[in-house]
Amino acid sequence: MAVAANLPSDETPSLEPLIRLVGDDLSRVNARIIEYMHSPVALIPQLAGHIVAAGGKRLRPMLTLAAARLCDYDGDRHVSLAACVEFIHTATLLHDDVVDESDLRRGIATANAVWGNKASVLVGDFLFSRAFQLMVADGSLEVLRILSHASAVIAEGEVLQLVTSNDTGTTEESYLEVIRSKTAQLFAAACRIGPVVAGRPAEEADALEAFGLNLGIAFQLVDDMLDYSARQAELGKTVGDDFRDGKITLPIVLAFARGDDEEKAFWRRTLEDQQQEPDDLAHAQMLLRRHGALEATMERAREYGARALESLAPFPAGPVRRALDEVVAFCIARAF
Amino acid sequence: MAVAANLPSDETPSLEPLIRLVGDDLSRVNARIIEYMHSPVALIPQLAGHIVAAGGKRLRPMLTLAAARLCDYDGDRHVSLAACVEFIHTATLLHDDVVDESDLRRGIATANAVWGNKASVLVGDFLFSRAFQLMVADGSLEVLRILSHASAVIAEGEVLQLVTSNDTGTTEESYLEVIRSKTAQLFAAACRIGPVVAGRPAEEADALEAFGLNLGIAFQLVDDMLDYSARQAELGKTVGDDFRDGKITLPIVLAFARGDDEEKAFWRRTLEDQQQEPDDLAHAQMLLRRHGALEATMERAREYGARALESLAPFPAGPVRRALDEVVAFCIARAF
Repeated sequence: MAVAANLPSDETPSLEPLIRLVGDDLSRVNARIIEYMHSPVALIPQLAGHIVAAGGKRLRPMLTLAAARLCDYDGDRHVSLAACVEFIHTATLLHDDVVDESDLRRGIATANAVWGNKASVLVGDFLFSRAFQLMVADGSLEVLRILSHASAVIAEGEVLQLVTSNDTGTTEESYLEVIRSKTAQLFAAACRIGPVVAGRPAEEADALEAFGLNLGIAFQLVDDMLDYSARQAELGKTVGDDFRDGKITLPIVLAFARGDDEEKAFWRRTLEDQQQEPDDLAHAQMLLRRHGALEATMERAREYGARALESLAPFPAGPVRRALDEVVAFCIARAF
Repeated sequence: MAVAANLPSDETPSLEPLIRLVGDDLSRVNARIIEYMHSPVALIPQLAGHIVAAGGKRLRPMLTLAAARLCDYDGDRHVSLAACVEFIHTATLLHDDVVDESDLRRGIATANAVWGNKASVLVGDFLFSRAFQLMVADGSLEVLRILSHASAVIAEGEVLQLVTSNDTGTTEESYLEVIRSKTAQLFAAACRIGPVVAGRPAEEADALEAFGLNLGIAFQLVDDMLDYSARQAELGKTVGDDFRDGKITLPIVLAFARGDDEEKAFWRRTLEDQQQEPDDLAHAQMLLRRHGALEATMERAREYGARALESLAPFPAGPVRRALDEVVAFCIARAF
């Protein structure tokens, strides 16, 4: 397997090498984030701080920092721009938390429960605007082009996800279009910014963008697999959120296509009609196992992971490339 | 009264002179809007088209067009940038439609009833991103600075409004801060773009920005007065929306300050505790009349209108300046 073969060691892959490499820059990114989410309207830093603090790994800004490092960039601009990437990510998280009347009726609780829909939307708008203010201060129209384009594609992907939600007729192609837009686009943009600030040729920018895009797809495929996996519980997250939301992810697309009429009726009842009984999640997991849907999803994730690694081929071997290779391996290995 | 004295004629002031002057450009703005809200995700043009079509007057993009004209601009950039202004306005309208659980419990219906909260948020994000893509295509960092700053201030104003909502302790100063941010900032930015694309000196940009800011404040003051006025019903809109939402606008701030203990208890019950009976709106209107709160709000609107007119003093007399003068008069005259 390509991904395993490129692993720098026999140990469990982790983000540690990446964090060691860009840790100092990342501290400056975090300081920049706190500085720029300030507002005289106290609820803004309060709510944004809650999300930024809970945001976790800072994977996307670390990709910007590492991509700049891989391109021998020795300036300072990547710090602010990595903060922009995280602001855009945080804004989409906040807007993703918004719930509909129909969701409320199903009793779904989300992170916006404390402050409400409206505050989540408006603070997301603030962070999004701040990201553009930071980019304007940086002064690169090319970076502005990359991130305004990414933002538009992300919004399109989120709307497409909303449209395909609860639709068991969703195809694998349509699913891939959703995750390429809503998730992978920001990974790709985060990576492209590195060579752009370093003034490197378009081929290198394209290569790092392809790395980010394929990594992002692999990342989301694993995420969507994990939602039905016992491993998710080990990671301290709830299992079955997507199922309860009626999200049509690849495991479902595959199990639905491979299922008989009775199984298709089950998926339609639970995901389209949102009529769910207490035992339905366990039954769904059994059907996914029966059809090898989680393994097949992981197989796709490995393919995109391998493409991500291939995209880095033009870059010289060394600690940065090894750390990025290990990010790919880490994203896959989260599954196990 | 300054505003009346500057009126170009004895007729009822209207937007007609402005529309006559910039009508051709506005048709191109509308074509640009339709072109750029296109997306392969059909729900996006569908929902955005609904809002853009319902959006009405196109006052903000017309201000950009007229400001450019006032500065003798003879290029083409103002058309795309006026479309940006309208996209940002539409995005904020969509996000303003988002309702909270608590609102739902009070049974408030909003324009997002057809598609739901989430679609409103995501399509708003798309339009917002598109606006930035259009600005990047235009290529002016100065315009990007103006509109990213305006967007951040608008979001801050909306959050401040949310925080002061239902709070009868809101001061006139705090109310003015909200409307200056959430409404007047975009009027100001729309106007500033004109002299910026025309390459005019900073004093002219500042003057047109001040015109937009003061016009925007006057506009919102009249809007907030109209919500309690019988005139609102004549204009085909519902009366009392702000009252039902518990929004603390200037008429309320003034009536609360001038009211006795019994009246203060009434405002607290209806606006803070949101305990409203069928006759409460009529009682609220009676209290506003008793304390001259609507007249006092209009008096403030006239003051800001006069400041808007003064801001135009550096510009030569002529049809564009007369049309802008009449916009101010129109905004005030809507009240009667």
